[in-house]
Amino acid sequence: MITISAFNNVPDFAKGLVRDMRVRWALEEAGLPYTTRLLEQGDQDKPDYRALQPFGQVPILEEDGLVLFESGAIVLHVGERSEALLPKDPVARGRAVQWLIAALNSIEPAVWNLFLIDFIFANEEWAKLRRPGAVEFMNRRLDALAKRLGNKPFLDGERFTAGDLMMAAVLGFHSETRKRDPRLAAYIDRCTARPAYRRALNAQLGDFRMAA
Amino acid sequence: MITISAFNNVPDFAKGLVRDMRVRWALEEAGLPYTTRLLEQGDQDKPDYRALQPFGQVPILEEDGLVLFESGAIVLHVGERSEALLPKDPVARGRAVQWLIAALNSIEPAVWNLFLIDFIFANEEWAKLRRPGAVEFMNRRLDALAKRLGNKPFLDGERFTAGDLMMAAVLGFHSETRKRDPRLAAYIDRCTARPAYRRALNAQLGDFRMAA
Repeated sequence: MITISAFNNVPDFAKGLVRDMRVRWALEEAGLPYTTRLLEQGDQDKPDYRALQPFGQVPILEEDGLVLFESGAIVLHVGERSEALLPKDPVARGRAVQWLIAALNSIEPAVWNLFLIDFIFANEEWAKLRRPGAVEFMNRRLDALAKRLGNKPFLDGERFTAGDLMMAAVLGFHSETRKRDPRLAAYIDRCTARPAYRRALNAQLGDFRMAA
Repeated sequence: MITISAFNNVPDFAKGLVRDMRVRWALEEAGLPYTTRLLEQGDQDKPDYRALQPFGQVPILEEDGLVLFESGAIVLHVGERSEALLPKDPVARGRAVQWLIAALNSIEPAVWNLFLIDFIFANEEWAKLRRPGAVEFMNRRLDALAKRLGNKPFLDGERFTAGDLMMAAVLGFHSETRKRDPRLAAYIDRCTARPAYRRALNAQLGDFRMAA
């Protein structure tokens, strides 16, 4: 049985965004059952968890002695078992991986930066001064993404992949992303309307409620 | 034949750091020959290049009609062809992918943030105000990485993988990373002493010189 680590509570603004969502969603798309190892705030810095996850982040995946961290790597690992996430055709598969990495390395840093500015450091002077440039940089990336997406349902065409899963998750970090372009808003809605996403979200929120 | 895009010139502080280095290095480790498609500054924003790379970044890989972008995805793609980068054993392979993603998503944003502050926005007021917090955040990540590395030669033990390639490349974005911990300095030196890295670096610098 696969076990995923997650927090048993987080501030409201983080609900639905904590990175175990990506892995829950991938497991739901793949039809693989899992259980959770729930952490209280602070547990992520204890030696037994840090031995498994050096940076004190969630999620980790544990299964039969294998321990993996980094949501992107776990989604790829789950994707190895399911064509719902990674096509078998090597070229289509390469492009799915490309979009997953683009989400993590070209879009997330820009969106996360604005998340930090608006939700974590909003009262800091540097955050106020930095915000216009951060928004401009993010918007350039979003405009390029929207243009490439065009009117296709998913980034590589008709078919949802792990790349769309990660891109939709990353765009969800800030509501400004959906306001930038109606194609991005429709894309996020299309991805998050998937039954697998809804089940994953209910599971994450359910774990928060159970602990409350 | 594989073709990689790269710039024909960049500012001195970026030499050896532009992201085509990662792909050149991976191709050298794998023993795969390649040629370059050199861009002048500005070419990355022209429609023909943006049609291949939506964000106007280097590198892209082109081969027999396949076009891939995102250095992380290209390194994984090259790794599919070479055990020098990705072990065949699924568990060892999963961990190599894990470290590649950790480099891109947990270490690079912290190091890149300081690179921007010190080399791109050094004269901005927000950069001066933000710098102490940015250094502190980066150092927490580096300390966790150094602790996990310990005295092993590479992140997963005795064997160099695509995860080490990406981690060493990412740590190279700022010299503060090697000053933080002697284990990290030795690790960076160990990775960049590899003949494949030296060949890749010479090739990138050679392309700059040829255009000068």
